[in-house]
Amino acid sequence: MIKHLVVVGVGLIGGSLALDLKQQGLVGKVTGVGRRRANLDKARELGIIDAIADSAAAAVGDADLVLLAVPVGAMGPLFRELAPVLPPGCIITDAGSTKQDVIAAARAGLGERIGQFVPAHPIAGAENSGAEAARPGLYRHKPLVITPLPENAPEAVDRVTALWKACGATVCRLPPERHDQVFAAVSHLPHLVAFALMEELAGRPDADIYFRHAGSGFRDFTRIAGSHPEMWRDISMANKDALVAEMDTFIAKLGDLRDLLKAGDSAALEALFARAREARHNWIKARGH
Amino acid sequence: MIKHLVVVGVGLIGGSLALDLKQQGLVGKVTGVGRRRANLDKARELGIIDAIADSAAAAVGDADLVLLAVPVGAMGPLFRELAPVLPPGCIITDAGSTKQDVIAAARAGLGERIGQFVPAHPIAGAENSGAEAARPGLYRHKPLVITPLPENAPEAVDRVTALWKACGATVCRLPPERHDQVFAAVSHLPHLVAFALMEELAGRPDADIYFRHAGSGFRDFTRIAGSHPEMWRDISMANKDALVAEMDTFIAKLGDLRDLLKAGDSAALEALFARAREARHNWIKARGH
Repeated sequence: MIKHLVVVGVGLIGGSLALDLKQQGLVGKVTGVGRRRANLDKARELGIIDAIADSAAAAVGDADLVLLAVPVGAMGPLFRELAPVLPPGCIITDAGSTKQDVIAAARAGLGERIGQFVPAHPIAGAENSGAEAARPGLYRHKPLVITPLPENAPEAVDRVTALWKACGATVCRLPPERHDQVFAAVSHLPHLVAFALMEELAGRPDADIYFRHAGSGFRDFTRIAGSHPEMWRDISMANKDALVAEMDTFIAKLGDLRDLLKAGDSAALEALFARAREARHNWIKARGH
Repeated sequence: MIKHLVVVGVGLIGGSLALDLKQQGLVGKVTGVGRRRANLDKARELGIIDAIADSAAAAVGDADLVLLAVPVGAMGPLFRELAPVLPPGCIITDAGSTKQDVIAAARAGLGERIGQFVPAHPIAGAENSGAEAARPGLYRHKPLVITPLPENAPEAVDRVTALWKACGATVCRLPPERHDQVFAAVSHLPHLVAFALMEELAGRPDADIYFRHAGSGFRDFTRIAGSHPEMWRDISMANKDALVAEMDTFIAKLGDLRDLLKAGDSAALEALFARAREARHNWIKARGH
């Protein structure tokens, strides 16, 4: 049970967590903090938050949990702001898509209070943003990664784990650097590829001919190109090294595939497609949906 | 009204058309032809077809429409088989994802009867295949491209147009070479990219770590990597030149994006992401879903 939850960034991620915890009676009061007042008013109107505070520092006086659900580039100033006013028993957690940079910002900002920060990453992004995108049940059966710090008390990690489990997430743990490398491959790279294809076609003088004939395969492939530009700028920069490495690997892979095609090696193409299809079928089966 | 429709390849595409036409009372009898007897038996059991024939040639004696819904690489022999037995008033149409190669195969196989072939491409592929994947309504609001031949009688083109319109498709016309170039960009390239990513990750020794943390963005991005390997081998080979050109363009684009990232040019990244997002929002809005 959380008495007072402070959500900094009341959008899809932060808002959905608040709704889930409220629905289950696991939270007393929720205070929202954010840059856009209109979004906070909307969040209160929708029953996602109960109160609005002007700043994170002003909100945390009696808080027992703070969720930072803002772009990863915006977290540094928040840690610095919270350090001098954070109550001793209060845990900060986050929902950042990268972990090494957020942890570095937390260490720099929180100093000796770093043990109060439990880094986490819920895998439930969608291309919609803002309080209106929030909905209960978003985290059901979704992976959630916690990358604990050596300074974290086991109870603090358990508390954040329990919170997300209550929302139906499948919680696992990874070292921060492994987290960032895995997500460069399964999330950040696909986002950049989808953005690149959409932007490439949109820039052609006859773009409308292409878009008019694009079907549902294209729609699904490019869904993530509707994601938030600022958020993805921050993620890309925060995870630059791992992402550049994955892009180099993938560009080389596409080059190999292009050469097979150019050479007319239809057997090798079919074998590659078959391995891909089998891997995807197995993944979907294991995933259950 | 079609008295006797012959569907060669009773899978998602051919089966769904048969179901739609039956449901609307626009077809008298449907005969199925295919390589796998079990699939044809299933199609008859499901009410998709009324009769099974051993070969296309054996089926077309009194047919007024033949739909070739087989991988594009399998169409050449069918045109040769049908040429000597095709009734004069019977129209052949197809559902091939590439058009220049199918037209070339039709010219070679049908000879003087080429005017009876009206090339078409319904944009409604999904990763499922076989008769069990067929369903009525598949073509509603989906684009359908006809690439008419100079030899086609206007009535023949109108008849195929009317058929697909009756199923709810949005019919448009393109020259065959333009069709192939547009679909290399909006369909064939994304398929190869999705296959490549799936195969790349599946080949890593620690593949399970990647797949365990992949979320819904990855799921949608790779949906088309579940497509049929043989079908996509044929499409890739059939549209090789246009597809190699699109791959070269896209590999260069990804290289530029990688360089922006490596250089830490966050403003340029954000601007590119924003252009992509805007283009996608506009497309989805124009598309209506």
